[in-house]
Amino acid sequence: MDLIKNAVGRLIPKEMDGKKLKPFRGMHADSGGGLKYGGLIPAASKFNHKVLKDLDAAIDACEIKDGMTISFHHHLRNGDLLVNRVVEKLAARGLKNLVLAPSALFPTHGKLVEYINSGVISHIEGSMNGPVGQVCSLGKMKKTAILRSHGGRYRAIQDGDLHIDVAFIAAPCADQHGNANGLYGKSACGPLGFALADSLYADRVVVVTDHLVPFPCYPWSIEGGNVDHVVVIDSLGDPSQIVSGTTQITRSPTRLLIAEYAAQLIKDSGIMQEPNFSFQAGAGGVSLAFVKFMGDLMHEAGVVADFVRGGSTQFMVELLENGLARYILDGQSFDLEGIRSLRDNPHHIETNPFVSYNYHTKGCFAQILKVSVLGATEIDLDFNVNVNTHSDGWLLHGIGGFTDAADAHVTMITAPLVRNRLPIVVDRVTTVTAPGEMIDVVVTERGIAINPRRQDLLDRLQSSRLPIKSIEELHDVAIDMTGVPAKPDFTDRIVALIEFRDGTIIDTVRQLLPKTGGA
Amino acid sequence: MDLIKNAVGRLIPKEMDGKKLKPFRGMHADSGGGLKYGGLIPAASKFNHKVLKDLDAAIDACEIKDGMTISFHHHLRNGDLLVNRVVEKLAARGLKNLVLAPSALFPTHGKLVEYINSGVISHIEGSMNGPVGQVCSLGKMKKTAILRSHGGRYRAIQDGDLHIDVAFIAAPCADQHGNANGLYGKSACGPLGFALADSLYADRVVVVTDHLVPFPCYPWSIEGGNVDHVVVIDSLGDPSQIVSGTTQITRSPTRLLIAEYAAQLIKDSGIMQEPNFSFQAGAGGVSLAFVKFMGDLMHEAGVVADFVRGGSTQFMVELLENGLARYILDGQSFDLEGIRSLRDNPHHIETNPFVSYNYHTKGCFAQILKVSVLGATEIDLDFNVNVNTHSDGWLLHGIGGFTDAADAHVTMITAPLVRNRLPIVVDRVTTVTAPGEMIDVVVTERGIAINPRRQDLLDRLQSSRLPIKSIEELHDVAIDMTGVPAKPDFTDRIVALIEFRDGTIIDTVRQLLPKTGGA
Repeated sequence: MDLIKNAVGRLIPKEMDGKKLKPFRGMHADSGGGLKYGGLIPAASKFNHKVLKDLDAAIDACEIKDGMTISFHHHLRNGDLLVNRVVEKLAARGLKNLVLAPSALFPTHGKLVEYINSGVISHIEGSMNGPVGQVCSLGKMKKTAILRSHGGRYRAIQDGDLHIDVAFIAAPCADQHGNANGLYGKSACGPLGFALADSLYADRVVVVTDHLVPFPCYPWSIEGGNVDHVVVIDSLGDPSQIVSGTTQITRSPTRLLIAEYAAQLIKDSGIMQEPNFSFQAGAGGVSLAFVKFMGDLMHEAGVVADFVRGGSTQFMVELLENGLARYILDGQSFDLEGIRSLRDNPHHIETNPFVSYNYHTKGCFAQILKVSVLGATEIDLDFNVNVNTHSDGWLLHGIGGFTDAADAHVTMITAPLVRNRLPIVVDRVTTVTAPGEMIDVVVTERGIAINPRRQDLLDRLQSSRLPIKSIEELHDVAIDMTGVPAKPDFTDRIVALIEFRDGTIIDTVRQLLPKTGGA
Repeated sequence: MDLIKNAVGRLIPKEMDGKKLKPFRGMHADSGGGLKYGGLIPAASKFNHKVLKDLDAAIDACEIKDGMTISFHHHLRNGDLLVNRVVEKLAARGLKNLVLAPSALFPTHGKLVEYINSGVISHIEGSMNGPVGQVCSLGKMKKTAILRSHGGRYRAIQDGDLHIDVAFIAAPCADQHGNANGLYGKSACGPLGFALADSLYADRVVVVTDHLVPFPCYPWSIEGGNVDHVVVIDSLGDPSQIVSGTTQITRSPTRLLIAEYAAQLIKDSGIMQEPNFSFQAGAGGVSLAFVKFMGDLMHEAGVVADFVRGGSTQFMVELLENGLARYILDGQSFDLEGIRSLRDNPHHIETNPFVSYNYHTKGCFAQILKVSVLGATEIDLDFNVNVNTHSDGWLLHGIGGFTDAADAHVTMITAPLVRNRLPIVVDRVTTVTAPGEMIDVVVTERGIAINPRRQDLLDRLQSSRLPIKSIEELHDVAIDMTGVPAKPDFTDRIVALIEFRDGTIIDTVRQLLPKTGGA
């Protein structure tokens, strides 16, 4: 195999499964060019009656064949029933070599492993989590999987790199024309933005709902003018697994300390006090606490953020309702408060990866964002970040919005220095998800490292009392605690490509020779 | 010139200005096919600073050259200052042979005539009204103008038939990223949907605003991710000409009678009482009265429409606020009440020609609509309708949304039988804008004609006391009043093509040998 070294020093094949690959050249090196994929030209007069009697009728109507690419979104998270149900039906029809293109998968989709093993699914383009990532690590997919960020997935579909034959869109609320949103009904999940690209560019689009309302279903996060068929089923999923009733802040003193350091750093650097303040944080243990601490500091200082970026939670909603943020720009709602606010508060805005994350746009929100707080499985001495594999070599996570959100003015990684007796700050990450040039700050409970590229930040923090250290110092502390961990054993076979948001390849994942049964 | 007869019997050139033309084959004959135009692939990192100091800087940045296509929207109606201002600047730079692609023009754009005469503008693709239509009739454009409906314009841009080099989008409210809407600011106009296609597909997009707000400007009818540059100017237009303070119902007994007949017909046919009732009406004298009468009949019968389609006015808003309509689906706001309601009432929804009118979609609202009430300059014995030229041959109007809205289940033309001593019901329309197969009912003060293709309607109206006559009878009455009018004299030269919403050519407009100075 012909390999070439990319800008983060990783060896990338020049070609894979018959497609030429472009090596990663730098976070902003890509300058676009060429034309987007337009999508098929349909004729409205053929779409007067869209409602079909069941999923089988939709599968028939879409004329699904061996080797086609089928897509799903992940807004129903671990509560989703649709992916398994559709793939089961496709398998029962004897279909083979399907490409699955979900925006993410969850533990509930572990069932797909048997369809990968039996050849119904040849490989996955999209995020893989848990058991499906493991089976990929073991080399069970016939072709090379491709991991993309949320923005990268939108880009790939828009640019025609990922052609979707049939998109199945789980829609908590829809009308007969196919207009759909995630705000109402028993399976309400919040935004539906991860399905937007699928609806715009897939050859066939099937909206599947358990809550059909009279036309017009509004807001139409998915527009009926892009929808071929509508199917009503009894239930899209398990509401308790779609969103949490309430989101809990971590009680771990370590994680609380990390969150407090992160918030304090934003204050101490003066960024919080500047005009156009904004930040993004997710729903993980540290993130929620960070939002809470950030809100306290803003309240004390009388600061109002122009916007905060969700995943929305009750803590984001409190910022909005307490006047500490003018807007929530929401990509997905994690709890019931997030959905309620999105539904009722005109300053809580549904977004999608085109407006928020897509690099092949004339600008997106990621680059407007002041502060982004993200997690990681490994960070190395070059500040490269890994969110996909663990130090033992298993592929266990998708990229999510990581590489996109890391385009913020200040990107901070929050992580405990040691996890499961393994260091998080390492000499060289197992897999590069995002290049060090995107990462500005690493916050651990044992100290904070600032990327030397950000001398401006170091200058601003000169009088801060935060425990600022070099990344090498953090690494030394970690190794002192854990010893030098063994590196995993890989074969030469590439089982997955890590695609950067601009479509270039930043790293590969190799087949694992497991020492244990998996993490 | 090689001509071919189309489905309404009009002779259409096989080719024009080097492009092959497709003759009209029937209202639903087109079945799509091929790929949409994708648009250029940009790179977000080049769009961190979009605000330019003035229009000249934007013209420089867009590198406008001779022969390029420049577009505008018409949401500021007769109050618009931007079209004249930009074209003036382009003319001052000595540019020639520009193609102007406005979604419509108004009397205030009469100034363009001098730029057409001097060759700055070679021709127009889009709507022409008044003086610009006249100069087209006189053969002053270098190339053949193309008239398209609102939905047809979206289709042409989407399909790549109309490639826009630079779109200038007048935006009453915008932020530095280029997010824009028409709801706030001194030039508030309501929706901005007519500019959507331009923003999605033009090579360069310039948002011009007189009301810059902090990011995020929401709703983002125009998404910043599609915008290259933002320019702030002192004033976009004359507010008193952008929207009316209040819209007045006609006092003409003739027009009131026509409106009453139209509403009564909907009731007598039983359509009003059926589920999923909906209707569309504009802001003309008859239309406003129709909305009022329709509301009265609905109120009496306890009927609630699923939706009403604007152009919104205070009368539409009253329907919504009085519970007689569940939603307003609004394409443009005609008065201050329309804007207020769009801004404040979540059941008053902004639309655009993609969702409402575009035939090259997987269905649009036009075909869901039950009743559409439209005006015309001529209707003939085959029910063909002309809205572009007058009987004296002058091209004086754009198509607006006519051909699109005529896809409703029941399309009604309301018009006085005689106007300016000329019959409106004629033997053969001067120009076919919409084929008779789309037109179901013609309502005049002297009687109502039902298209014989709609035997179902004739059956439903058997016990109605409305004055139902044949179209031939209406024609005879008209001719009795006016005499047989002289036909206009045309040269052989085709000065404009009337494009049907599917991209086929339904008729041509020929150069006029004027008897008078114009209507």
